[in-house]
Amino acid sequence: MYFDVASTAPLHPVARQALTAALDEGWADPARLYRSGRQARMLLDAARETVAEVLGCRADEISFTASGTQAVQLGMLGALHGNRRRGRHLVHSAVEHSSVLHTADRHQGAGGEVTAVPVDRHGRADPAAFAAALRPDTALAVLQSANHEVGTVQPVAETAARCGDVPLLVDAAQSAGRVDVPAGWSLLAASAHKWGGPAGVGVLAVRKGVRYASPLPADEREGGRVPGYVNVPAIVAAAASLRAVRAEAARENARLHELVERIRARVPRLVPAVEVVGDPVRRLPHLVTFSCLYVDGEVLLGELDRAGFAVSSGSSCTSSTLTPSHVLAAMGVLTEGNVRVSLPFGTAEADVERFLAVLPEVVAGVRAPLGLDLAPPAGGEGLPAAGPREGAGAGSEHPETSGPITDPLVLDALGKRCPLPVIELAKRIGEVPVGGTVVVLADDEAARLDVPAWCGMRGQEYLGEAPAAEYGGDRGSAYLVRRVS
Amino acid sequence: MYFDVASTAPLHPVARQALTAALDEGWADPARLYRSGRQARMLLDAARETVAEVLGCRADEISFTASGTQAVQLGMLGALHGNRRRGRHLVHSAVEHSSVLHTADRHQGAGGEVTAVPVDRHGRADPAAFAAALRPDTALAVLQSANHEVGTVQPVAETAARCGDVPLLVDAAQSAGRVDVPAGWSLLAASAHKWGGPAGVGVLAVRKGVRYASPLPADEREGGRVPGYVNVPAIVAAAASLRAVRAEAARENARLHELVERIRARVPRLVPAVEVVGDPVRRLPHLVTFSCLYVDGEVLLGELDRAGFAVSSGSSCTSSTLTPSHVLAAMGVLTEGNVRVSLPFGTAEADVERFLAVLPEVVAGVRAPLGLDLAPPAGGEGLPAAGPREGAGAGSEHPETSGPITDPLVLDALGKRCPLPVIELAKRIGEVPVGGTVVVLADDEAARLDVPAWCGMRGQEYLGEAPAAEYGGDRGSAYLVRRVS
Repeated sequence: MYFDVASTAPLHPVARQALTAALDEGWADPARLYRSGRQARMLLDAARETVAEVLGCRADEISFTASGTQAVQLGMLGALHGNRRRGRHLVHSAVEHSSVLHTADRHQGAGGEVTAVPVDRHGRADPAAFAAALRPDTALAVLQSANHEVGTVQPVAETAARCGDVPLLVDAAQSAGRVDVPAGWSLLAASAHKWGGPAGVGVLAVRKGVRYASPLPADEREGGRVPGYVNVPAIVAAAASLRAVRAEAARENARLHELVERIRARVPRLVPAVEVVGDPVRRLPHLVTFSCLYVDGEVLLGELDRAGFAVSSGSSCTSSTLTPSHVLAAMGVLTEGNVRVSLPFGTAEADVERFLAVLPEVVAGVRAPLGLDLAPPAGGEGLPAAGPREGAGAGSEHPETSGPITDPLVLDALGKRCPLPVIELAKRIGEVPVGGTVVVLADDEAARLDVPAWCGMRGQEYLGEAPAAEYGGDRGSAYLVRRVS
Repeated sequence: MYFDVASTAPLHPVARQALTAALDEGWADPARLYRSGRQARMLLDAARETVAEVLGCRADEISFTASGTQAVQLGMLGALHGNRRRGRHLVHSAVEHSSVLHTADRHQGAGGEVTAVPVDRHGRADPAAFAAALRPDTALAVLQSANHEVGTVQPVAETAARCGDVPLLVDAAQSAGRVDVPAGWSLLAASAHKWGGPAGVGVLAVRKGVRYASPLPADEREGGRVPGYVNVPAIVAAAASLRAVRAEAARENARLHELVERIRARVPRLVPAVEVVGDPVRRLPHLVTFSCLYVDGEVLLGELDRAGFAVSSGSSCTSSTLTPSHVLAAMGVLTEGNVRVSLPFGTAEADVERFLAVLPEVVAGVRAPLGLDLAPPAGGEGLPAAGPREGAGAGSEHPETSGPITDPLVLDALGKRCPLPVIELAKRIGEVPVGGTVVVLADDEAARLDVPAWCGMRGQEYLGEAPAAEYGGDRGSAYLVRRVS
């Protein structure tokens, strides 16, 4: 069962048919004047009309890119360059796709300024906070339509209304085709393979009147915005599948919403020590994410794969950089044992039931060797005492105690990867009396999120973070926990 | 008959089969750890090995881009950025693909320096001249493997041998798959749809040890060189067709070479007042270009299209910018009535014969209303008296006469598009006595090339160019011609 449509959707049957037909009819260079060239041009024009209609804009506002990432990069850099007389300040939410964050990094590296607006514990950007980050020299604001890791739908229309004349780029990669694009965007980015179209097609829409200056060398194709030979067959397939998906969405969204609701409600009952993350109400219909305490995400994904389920994870162990997802970090939630389930159109109820039947065994199997107490704490599971952490993961904060705690139990988890520091903490906190303090020394980035999350879930008190050197560590941080039960 | 494979090749059957199979087997995200993701990764790895083998490099030197243009842009900007400590000087031949010229423009606009090395009348860059353009601060040199408009094969290996430690980017878009890539490149760019692969795939190869710094925001995919979701099915199809084409090339190249030789030899015999351009010996097997005096390129292409032949043109009337091809301009050859014939693998001899049968009638039909003398001049047709024009089209030169000619016949062709200024000249030169002078006032860029070319072909003497104002024109240039026969 493929439950990772948020990474890429299986090719929609309509896309496959359109692709096959367009390989025959639209293979020639649409810039050429002979018959096969004109035919390719007509197919391209028709595809542009279709995409414009579904996205709610004019055909001449649409440029086709090679990917959603390219649409984001060109959209951001082009709008920043086009609006450079306003200034060089960029605003985006802290939970944007990595393509947005990397483009922001590049902008900052070139002398621009960047403000990342924090999100709440559900991953939602507050329109007022977003608006407050805007300045007279803000050249561009960027906000996703919905989050790709936790499914939270962002308040785009409310935010757009507060942006005034600052252009707003909406990254609609996770929602285009499935739900209507919210009003108010100046630039829009999307990706065909996310909605069931082929790989190799992204969409960059730029509203008439929005200043844009291409960051790339000149090229007359795609309105001067996207250099390179135009991939007509893939664009035709992308457009055909977008229309098809949009038509199926009303029925499928309601059905998948219910299946996701089932997962959201039942996973916490079936699996102990689990945290379902993302907005429970303002969410994408087909996507749900949860994290399992004491579980290695990569091991969990491997076991689920063996059981026949393809899912994704924001745990650090599944990332090439060995850092936890910046989305989960910005939300301040547990990152270990993280699982993202995203259901394709047509997912059968029975397959979701099978997943719910398999998951508890799989998680239990991974946890079994640890021999840890998984019963809910006396006060019940709750959110971490620290609450939402603004700018979480950005640096160390000193705990509210004055100076180092005297005589704590110091656990050296330096060099140990997630979830080992938290497992160590869970195993040994019983060695101090109630009221006593445990210090976890760790250099794995995930510990910064997972130790506070563990405290919240297990009814212990998180005191804060200090330099590891204060407790004898030669690197990393010290995470202080008071035993309260 | 599709005779424009230099624009794009029809999809090779092997590419289509591989694409269909890879849409089934390689549709998932190759960065994912579950089974379908691992399978996509294996297909991608295998495709990379295949392409590396055919191009003669290591698999980890290959990055897949979205197009040949993107490969050129990233290759040039990445190498310029990576070698910026050497300096900011860029060298390329004057007949590179527009993607190279536009990237050079962008580099110059950002403060870099650019030298375009002139070519000879056959469009060939001289290795010694190329080497002479290199400086201690040269960060990159760019040379195509073969010219895309006239088929001239460039002396890449000889030039590379003279480049020393200056990295050489070879744009192999027109030859990859058809002929071996010449030795000596540091970076290589190619495009799958030119060899019969699908659109949406380019190749950027960067030799180990060549300095490269991505000009785009960070992205871990494709060795950090090409951001965006990797289009596995298209890449698999590109690799499969590259191998297939390379295997067929030996047989097809010889056959097409003979067919092109036939066109080269017979067109000047069948069509009066025609110039076949490009190197007659060091040339691509499948490509030939010629220009027809007094003929509007767009009209000619339209008539050939109606007769069933899809060909291309470098005439100004067929360009979106209404300027003649920079390649023909750099060669200093006739640009009006320009036709590029490029034969796909499998082109039947009978179809070439049919083209040779149809062409004379079509050209004669276009010329008939003009009532011009098309017989060869007394001394026979020849090259323009001015010979190869270095930096042709770059600006106006003053004729070698001192001051304005007295009492010439001034023909006002201002506002008239190619080929009208030359037609006007041909019609009216008889009005001056032998030894007399005709001045053509024209603001169409093509006149700068076509008036001298006409003189050469019609046995008249081209005196040079002067500001139009000297002869009563309010814009454009004055082209001076002395009647000698």
